[in-house]
Amino acid sequence: MKIAVLGTGMVGRALAGRLSALGHDVVIGTRTVEQTLARTEPDAMGNVPFGQWQGEHPAVRLLTFADAAAHGDLVVNASPGAISLTVLEAAGAANLSGKVLWDIALPLDLSQGLPPTLTVANTDSLGEQIQRAYPDARVVKALTTVFAEVMVHPGRVPGEHNIFVAGEDADAKATVTELIGQFGWPAKAVVDLGGIRGARGVEMYGPFYFAMSAALGTFDFNIAIVRA
Amino acid sequence: MKIAVLGTGMVGRALAGRLSALGHDVVIGTRTVEQTLARTEPDAMGNVPFGQWQGEHPAVRLLTFADAAAHGDLVVNASPGAISLTVLEAAGAANLSGKVLWDIALPLDLSQGLPPTLTVANTDSLGEQIQRAYPDARVVKALTTVFAEVMVHPGRVPGEHNIFVAGEDADAKATVTELIGQFGWPAKAVVDLGGIRGARGVEMYGPFYFAMSAALGTFDFNIAIVRA
Repeated sequence: MKIAVLGTGMVGRALAGRLSALGHDVVIGTRTVEQTLARTEPDAMGNVPFGQWQGEHPAVRLLTFADAAAHGDLVVNASPGAISLTVLEAAGAANLSGKVLWDIALPLDLSQGLPPTLTVANTDSLGEQIQRAYPDARVVKALTTVFAEVMVHPGRVPGEHNIFVAGEDADAKATVTELIGQFGWPAKAVVDLGGIRGARGVEMYGPFYFAMSAALGTFDFNIAIVRA
Repeated sequence: MKIAVLGTGMVGRALAGRLSALGHDVVIGTRTVEQTLARTEPDAMGNVPFGQWQGEHPAVRLLTFADAAAHGDLVVNASPGAISLTVLEAAGAANLSGKVLWDIALPLDLSQGLPPTLTVANTDSLGEQIQRAYPDARVVKALTTVFAEVMVHPGRVPGEHNIFVAGEDADAKATVTELIGQFGWPAKAVVDLGGIRGARGVEMYGPFYFAMSAALGTFDFNIAIVRA
């Protein structure tokens, strides 16, 4: 599948690297290709410079947001949630129209440090904002509730645990669920939260997730639904 | 232990009934005793009239919020979160001072129907509001993340699953954790989220919880943390 991943950070790299290793035709989108490749220092999160990462993933090409989105039959928003609407504007509505737009972003406001708050919450969500801004895109919110490495290697967390999808388009959710399955998430682990309003739930889980992570001292965890 | 439960709804009844059955000296607080007892119809949630419930729990006396809070060495806020600050005002600061104030309330805004939004979220929480309003009370946010019957009978959900406490006062958290233990929650199931800001996490989990509940078709569930 031709897939565009928007965002060169930890989540973007994890998704692009894994999707490429699985045999998909993957490109990564960034604002300015030259600037992204010119960096020689680790980023604020300690990730190695993108050029170094790309050297280890030669099959993944770096393009502008617009060129990447034009390439993808499916587009993954892996940009920081606080700037995702700007990133998608740069990608261009025409390059998103009719496509599955898989939104992984968490709208974290890190301006006051950790623990984060959200830039949108409670009466709206980033997933809903994106679907409203791009009504012709088939937005699926999915994979937001775990750390990047757990997203693409669910076996890092032992046993059964759950992941969530939300969106208006059942076929689009099925496509994303199929890709998640390729990462190693069994179909029965995937909980369908219904329409795109379900994005509100998984995004608001973010502050709870960070509080749990601080208590546990690790990001290598997930939740399992246990029911009677 | 002398315990006051503020709130005559589903959560208040579940807590008061269970605490009383465990041998505690429990009173329930309400705004107007006569009005609460005069009701002859089920409430909006389908709960039986309070007088009928009290007939089945004769050891639990019904008092005003202030009289109940004065009785309790520990006070449980089981009122609807949207009105909890008003309820606590009626209970009176003097009757809360120095005491463990166990806040179970979820600040649901049900004015637009289901699924609910929250009356406070993201940059503040009900738990934090209560602690600020009553700096001499030792506020513990706990047990907010499950359905009333699961709160007091965790064995309804099989196997291991988790519950959360947050608050500034370690002794107060230990007291609440001990009571939770009497309900059947093993100590290892209780995750300490740190200070009262942790209330934000468990309250914001609310919309996610309701979305999961809708997907599962039951409230008889909980989450288990699974870690590497």
